[in-house]
Amino acid sequence: MTNTTRIVLAERPHGEPKDSDFRFEEVALPEPSSGEVVLQTLYLSLDPYMRGRMSAAKSYAAPVEIGDTMVGATVSRVLQSTVDDFAEGDIVLGYGGWQTHSVEKAKYLRKLDTDTVPASTALGVLGMPGFTAYSGLLTIGNPQPGETVVVAAAAGPVGSAVGQIAKIKGARAVGIAGGPDKVKYLTEELGFDAAVDHRADDFAEQLKAATPDGIDVYFENVGGNVFDQVIRRMNLYGRIPVCGLVANYNLTSLPDGPDRTGQLMNTVLIKSLTIRGFIQTEFAGEQMPAFLDEASGWVADGSLKYREDVTEGFDNVLDAFRGLLAGRNFGKALVKIAD
Amino acid sequence: MTNTTRIVLAERPHGEPKDSDFRFEEVALPEPSSGEVVLQTLYLSLDPYMRGRMSAAKSYAAPVEIGDTMVGATVSRVLQSTVDDFAEGDIVLGYGGWQTHSVEKAKYLRKLDTDTVPASTALGVLGMPGFTAYSGLLTIGNPQPGETVVVAAAAGPVGSAVGQIAKIKGARAVGIAGGPDKVKYLTEELGFDAAVDHRADDFAEQLKAATPDGIDVYFENVGGNVFDQVIRRMNLYGRIPVCGLVANYNLTSLPDGPDRTGQLMNTVLIKSLTIRGFIQTEFAGEQMPAFLDEASGWVADGSLKYREDVTEGFDNVLDAFRGLLAGRNFGKALVKIAD
Repeated sequence: MTNTTRIVLAERPHGEPKDSDFRFEEVALPEPSSGEVVLQTLYLSLDPYMRGRMSAAKSYAAPVEIGDTMVGATVSRVLQSTVDDFAEGDIVLGYGGWQTHSVEKAKYLRKLDTDTVPASTALGVLGMPGFTAYSGLLTIGNPQPGETVVVAAAAGPVGSAVGQIAKIKGARAVGIAGGPDKVKYLTEELGFDAAVDHRADDFAEQLKAATPDGIDVYFENVGGNVFDQVIRRMNLYGRIPVCGLVANYNLTSLPDGPDRTGQLMNTVLIKSLTIRGFIQTEFAGEQMPAFLDEASGWVADGSLKYREDVTEGFDNVLDAFRGLLAGRNFGKALVKIAD
Repeated sequence: MTNTTRIVLAERPHGEPKDSDFRFEEVALPEPSSGEVVLQTLYLSLDPYMRGRMSAAKSYAAPVEIGDTMVGATVSRVLQSTVDDFAEGDIVLGYGGWQTHSVEKAKYLRKLDTDTVPASTALGVLGMPGFTAYSGLLTIGNPQPGETVVVAAAAGPVGSAVGQIAKIKGARAVGIAGGPDKVKYLTEELGFDAAVDHRADDFAEQLKAATPDGIDVYFENVGGNVFDQVIRRMNLYGRIPVCGLVANYNLTSLPDGPDRTGQLMNTVLIKSLTIRGFIQTEFAGEQMPAFLDEASGWVADGSLKYREDVTEGFDNVLDAFRGLLAGRNFGKALVKIAD
């Protein structure tokens, strides 16, 4: 019998999630049925979409119910297996959620090769965030050589991959991030052509200087003021893949007026823009094998770099998640739960 | 020497265009140079895009300068020709603008066959409005058999073609129009599956009842409250071609808050919607021949019906144009200037 410590949703958060919106519980896991394996969580992935799962509002996936364990992707070690495909000690990508141990169906797991890249990359650059960047940028953004691609939250796992893949495809990459350290990282470490600090007083002027030929592709994962400034610089026939709006996730009411919805639609009209929302699952069936193949090569040859922001210890999950929503992480947000 | 009476832009309108924003002038036309023809205007087309040309704001086409003749498509008779392709008496599609006579380059004219369909159709169902419907609906909207297509200003030349072409492609067509006569016309004359009155107090409920399976394609040419109600009923992966926003054209300030821009973007995200602005000229090079061929066949076999709202007399151009912006026309707005 294995015990798990888990974090369940106690109340639906209003605004920023509070400690009291959750409850830590220690319970015994059920014995695995045939086809199931028992796992110990090594890394838990923290991602902005999780804020949506805490709300009852209709979204692209069902909300987590009150009293249920918070969901999330995990890298885990097999403790006990009922199937031939997985043996004790194997490291796997699963969806164990916010807990120290889990029982999962083997058919939903993917065994990870930990010889060539660290297992944690399966939650970041070679996982859902990397694939979100790859599929949204290439399928919707369709950047052409010499075009300008702008991405916000550019030091995060999605944004950093967007900019680097744009470069690989011959486009000009401009990153937007919060604070001088992240901005410096984008140009000096990741090879972005330019980077802009959205917290700077002269953000609009910086953005203008960084995009002298306008913007052809804006990969939207933030919303808010960044979007307001970017949209003014979009070129004719510009494309805007929308995979997230983290600036809005903790809002408890609509911002004050005037209502600029009509103004946005007018810009879409006069510039013949495309705005396209997407969730990476739409493209996973068709494109995931090609992504894993290509992106692994890019990671290996150094053209796709990544950075992880690892919080140690299961007790710190909630602080780390609040930090993610506020942009305090620097790299892919992970919680290390066991060695 | 031929004289023309023309309407020039005297001032940029603030809100609804006033008589004093324009000036009628009678002037002598220049003698035609080689390659030019002298034309008498028979029909002037009035279209919502013209309101944009009266403003100095940057748009997809340059504004009409103060003192210049207002632009517009025309069906005209050749009075004098310097080229072999056109003879006196030929009826042509041109871009003579708001005037009774014009001198135009022959290479921009298209000779009209008036035996099979009335010449005025070149300004409506077989002209720019019809092609706007055809290219935007089929290229961006891409309606599949059984899907629901909704279009506003559905009794107008673009909207009526959108609905009927949707039907031809096997989709369900739902029209939105202002007032019971137009609503009745859509279902009883044009064969729309349902029609809804946006002026009715229970518009939202009517729309819901008319779209029990949600909305897959919304062809946007109106904006405002209609858009607000439609977007709530969009299905996953819905497509929104945007060719006009007539509800906004006379606005002199942004509407009061709250600001719902973020809410719109959130809907785009959670429903994986595509919003795509376009001007028909983007597709004209590739698709115009196919359109003229297909649409002429549909008009001939009765599957693509049209209606014209003809104002008699050049003196009434301004009233007719204000009526168009307010939705008082019922069918393609034309001004008949000569027999």
